[in-house]
Amino acid sequence: MTRTAADRCALADRLRILVISRPEPSCGRPLLDVLSACVDAGATAIQLRDKEASARDLLELARAARARFGHARVLLTVNDRLDVALAAGVGGVHLGPDDLPVRAARRVAPPPFLIGYSTDDPDQAREAARAGADYVGVGAVYGTRSKPGLADEAIGPARVRAVMDASGLPCVGIGGVTPANARPVFETGAGVAVLSAVMDAPDPAAVVRRLARASRSQGRRR
Amino acid sequence: MTRTAADRCALADRLRILVISRPEPSCGRPLLDVLSACVDAGATAIQLRDKEASARDLLELARAARARFGHARVLLTVNDRLDVALAAGVGGVHLGPDDLPVRAARRVAPPPFLIGYSTDDPDQAREAARAGADYVGVGAVYGTRSKPGLADEAIGPARVRAVMDASGLPCVGIGGVTPANARPVFETGAGVAVLSAVMDAPDPAAVVRRLARASRSQGRRR
Repeated sequence: MTRTAADRCALADRLRILVISRPEPSCGRPLLDVLSACVDAGATAIQLRDKEASARDLLELARAARARFGHARVLLTVNDRLDVALAAGVGGVHLGPDDLPVRAARRVAPPPFLIGYSTDDPDQAREAARAGADYVGVGAVYGTRSKPGLADEAIGPARVRAVMDASGLPCVGIGGVTPANARPVFETGAGVAVLSAVMDAPDPAAVVRRLARASRSQGRRR
Repeated sequence: MTRTAADRCALADRLRILVISRPEPSCGRPLLDVLSACVDAGATAIQLRDKEASARDLLELARAARARFGHARVLLTVNDRLDVALAAGVGGVHLGPDDLPVRAARRVAPPPFLIGYSTDDPDQAREAARAGADYVGVGAVYGTRSKPGLADEAIGPARVRAVMDASGLPCVGIGGVTPANARPVFETGAGVAVLSAVMDAPDPAAVVRRLARASRSQGRRR
């Protein structure tokens, strides 16, 4: 870990409300319009995720998102495809267990390019930090609705805290997070990542606004 | 195009017989053993191709292939995944129309990292050369057997020559190439790329040896 504590705090702030995208939001509006509304509503980060898209199509989406949001307003990352993330000039990539190993990705993409990694295991998170990860996605906090057939065990907010303590990295709790249950996650000091709760919503921006309120009320009590 | 004519000739030599891999060769032997036998038999380049593999598995394969063949013996490339190619430290990546655009890939991976591009169109090949491609895969020369349901039109060796002339880049003819029909492709000055002819063969190395003989006999008559 070469980053300073101040860097990590700044990154934690940028990961307060992470919206993960899906190709076609349920509300029937174009994806970029939905993401734009989410940013206006308080989303601090967006991860572009489309496992089925070709590299060319994902690059086009990432470039369009970058042009629309810019670096200043929101942290923009791409799921899985490090090459697409680098080509698009976004801020980082998010890697899971089947993707490039963190250490390999780090060699290709030095800081300040950000690398996120998914795990619910404190030891793996510590190892990812040593390998060069900048933040950890921890879940499923409350189970998940995004992966049909995979009913991920709910690990609860305490595990998010354990992963954060073990790794020393900013974390986002993911999996079944909604405005109604987000506060315990925020209370650990982690951010939240939402996919279904926003992408399935008739009014995605309203969900983000409620998450932002939960985040702020937690912040006031801290 | 920043490369010299000598660079291009050296690359053309390395692309004389390009074997494209498939996860499970028909002969029932482990892929790396088959590729190793192909290299011993005269293959000058190997492209690792597995559209279904995770990035992690493809990286593992590419690293194993690199450890086994080294840089000196054979040119090793990866299909589609630029990030995997860079992480594995292989010599290049091969890109098709759905993959990252050549120009975007080139910005991420400067020379001497090699970028190949697939097209049968002389104008597109010229454009790819301007965008930073190092070589072109041209086909389907004789139709193809690798993509069921996609009966690619056979473009013939003359088109390979036309693409080579338009782009000024080394080319490999691909699509239905066998030892029996390879010579007209070699006679254009291009190399050949083979997938099914080798991966479906009971004795892949024997096919490569016949291709190497066809290449040498063409060379003597040149």
